[in-house]
Amino acid sequence: MRVALAARNVGKLDALAAETKARAIACDAANPQQVAELFGSIDAPDLVVYNPSYRVRGPFLQLDPAEVLRTLTVTAYGGLLVAQEALKRMVPRGHGALFFTGASASVKGYAESAPFAMGKFALRGLAQSLAREFGPKNIHVAHFVIDGGIGKASDPRAAARGADGMLDPDAIAQTYMDVYRQHRSAWAFEVDLRPWAEKF
Amino acid sequence: MRVALAARNVGKLDALAAETKARAIACDAANPQQVAELFGSIDAPDLVVYNPSYRVRGPFLQLDPAEVLRTLTVTAYGGLLVAQEALKRMVPRGHGALFFTGASASVKGYAESAPFAMGKFALRGLAQSLAREFGPKNIHVAHFVIDGGIGKASDPRAAARGADGMLDPDAIAQTYMDVYRQHRSAWAFEVDLRPWAEKF
Amino acid sequence: MRVALAARNVGKLDALAAETKARAIACDAANPQQVAELFGSIDAPDLVVYNPSYRVRGPFLQLDPAEVLRTLTVTAYGGLLVAQEALKRMVPRGHGALFFTGASASVKGYAESAPFAMGKFALRGLAQSLAREFGPKNIHVAHFVIDGGIGKASDPRAAARGADGMLDPDAIAQTYMDVYRQHRSAWAFEVDLRPWAEKF
Amino acid sequence: MRVALAARNVGKLDALAAETKARAIACDAANPQQVAELFGSIDAPDLVVYNPSYRVRGPFLQLDPAEVLRTLTVTAYGGLLVAQEALKRMVPRGHGALFFTGASASVKGYAESAPFAMGKFALRGLAQSLAREFGPKNIHVAHFVIDGGIGKASDPRAAARGADGMLDPDAIAQTYMDVYRQHRSAWAFEVDLRPWAEKF
Repeated sequence: MRVALAARNVGKLDALAAETKARAIACDAANPQQVAELFGSIDAPDLVVYNPSYRVRGPFLQLDPAEVLRTLTVTAYGGLLVAQEALKRMVPRGHGALFFTGASASVKGYAESAPFAMGKFALRGLAQSLAREFGPKNIHVAHFVIDGGIGKASDPRAAARGADGMLDPDAIAQTYMDVYRQHRSAWAFEVDLRPWAEKF
Repeated sequence: MRVALAARNVGKLDALAAETKARAIACDAANPQQVAELFGSIDAPDLVVYNPSYRVRGPFLQLDPAEVLRTLTVTAYGGLLVAQEALKRMVPRGHGALFFTGASASVKGYAESAPFAMGKFALRGLAQSLAREFGPKNIHVAHFVIDGGIGKASDPRAAARGADGMLDPDAIAQTYMDVYRQHRSAWAFEVDLRPWAEKF
Repeated sequence: MRVALAARNVGKLDALAAETKARAIACDAANPQQVAELFGSIDAPDLVVYNPSYRVRGPFLQLDPAEVLRTLTVTAYGGLLVAQEALKRMVPRGHGALFFTGASASVKGYAESAPFAMGKFALRGLAQSLAREFGPKNIHVAHFVIDGGIGKASDPRAAARGADGMLDPDAIAQTYMDVYRQHRSAWAFEVDLRPWAEKF
Repeated sequence: MRVALAARNVGKLDALAAETKARAIACDAANPQQVAELFGSIDAPDLVVYNPSYRVRGPFLQLDPAEVLRTLTVTAYGGLLVAQEALKRMVPRGHGALFFTGASASVKGYAESAPFAMGKFALRGLAQSLAREFGPKNIHVAHFVIDGGIGKASDPRAAARGADGMLDPDAIAQTYMDVYRQHRSAWAFEVDLRPWAEKF
């Protein structure tokens, strides 16, 4: 399996790229031109995962509208741009998988966190719509509700949350791979993941 | 009750403004400056209803990203702009109501209609978040899922849908007023409305 | 409007019956024979509201299965019995309304409260199914999610919850009447009600 | 892995028991005594899957209440009985997994199918409650929404549904095993499964 990683700040990908022998590519997911270039620079993908999000939080009346707009464009509109480039390549080949990473905020709008809810709700709406349009074209579209903090056991924030109290990225990845390998007679659209002792 | 109506194309409001003796004000809800001017030109409101939406639909791979972005900004980001201006005036007075008009697409992403789902899902996330933040400040935030076509019995499209097969705008308005008049010990957050014989 | 009230323990209805000049009738909602007799003793109703519930809670491993079964039969199966008798009379007349009272537990299964969740989830499934079958027969089926404690301001438990911190029964009743009076072009199926400052 | 299979009609299990070298045990899941005996006859289990359901469907006014009650007891109350016996053995050992099989009817009450919706909604409420109570005790409780017909490609009903148009039982089982093997830092509570071209 060959992997390409993309991020606005490609420096952040160094360790992961080294570990996975993946290519790291700079890309702002909310920029149509950059997304097109990203896909132009790689082979037609079998699986595309959309993780990007941007968030501002705090008392609603203090939010800067420009920052909220950025939340919407990175978290949701970028998902649309990436989905178009990905599906453009998957549909002619007759297969592929397109996964979207959501959050607790995908299904619940928390106080003082409207922008993140707006972005993640929107991304879920996109994913549902794409699943209904492209499932019958043999493209597996799925949405994951990540309900909790993400971090390795070695993460400094982990101690306060008890053993296995943060979602280990490798554990999340395992479930993504499990879903990717599902037989098409029984595809999951939505999976929620949270640590065993997480309140929900 | 004094009413102000706003729309991008203010000419569309003529008949309604005449009927209700309301002021009609031109405003693009996705434009922060125009939204601020709108609220600056009226008295502090007791009830604000956010209806605007914009939609493009069709096969996903043919969607123009700029049009999708417009869907998001009019349908959801505009709701945030209006909510900020409205709440800025309601919170100091210690009361008010802020209602958002959703659609079937608020809770289900239909095939070939991703942009509308993105906008309406996002608006619902906004409404949930605001209800949680501003309910305890005595502001009634509610979200309505309008599940069906809207039109008077005289609407040319109504005949094909059977008697009372489209949501009468006056019937919708009645429920909005009912919810506006609710005692705060029993506020509704979400109400779904559809014609009696509508499939759902 | 003439009202009939039913409860297992009819003595509990004395005050309410006196206040509303309603008939009070003893009936165990989970008993088919008694439900049939109840409906046989009154005129064909325009509106029927199903409120009964029974609950046991506590650590799951300590629950008595017989008590759990009672939760299911009173909370959900009784709703079915009442719905059959009510609809039997409404369908031939071509109109009527059938309302079900749910709870927070209708949409969320809380720890140490499985039986109540089972009963209230089941009742909601019943209500959805009936709305889809009988809406097109001009019967308005609706379900209300009552999310909070119910009590008058004078209730001894109210003080601890702050002003209007419990759902006033009259406020709930007002919304039920509002929904009952809805024009059939815009019927609500589900309304959630909670005190203004309630966490959700 | 050693497997025990239980069904009311144990003859139905012959082929599967032969294939899997599993023990087949007669048990009516709605009978507390039989469920206790079932668990008394096997070793403490690591994973328990609750599949049983019973359904009646048809016009609501023609339903036999006794049959509806049977739907509730087999589909939901039996799940509670099995959960108690299973958890009684898992909690002291400090680990285990308890999976519940739902259906489309777990989340949507279809017309003319109220009893099945009642049973499956109730089972989902049970599963949610147990996940919240026993997750923090290291017991993985999960609920699967099986949205479509189940059958092997060789099933006579499969042809009418197109290639892979029914959920292959082996494919469902694969996802159950994937979820069983999840690391507890990222447990799924709910997974929906449907054939790739299924409408939803």
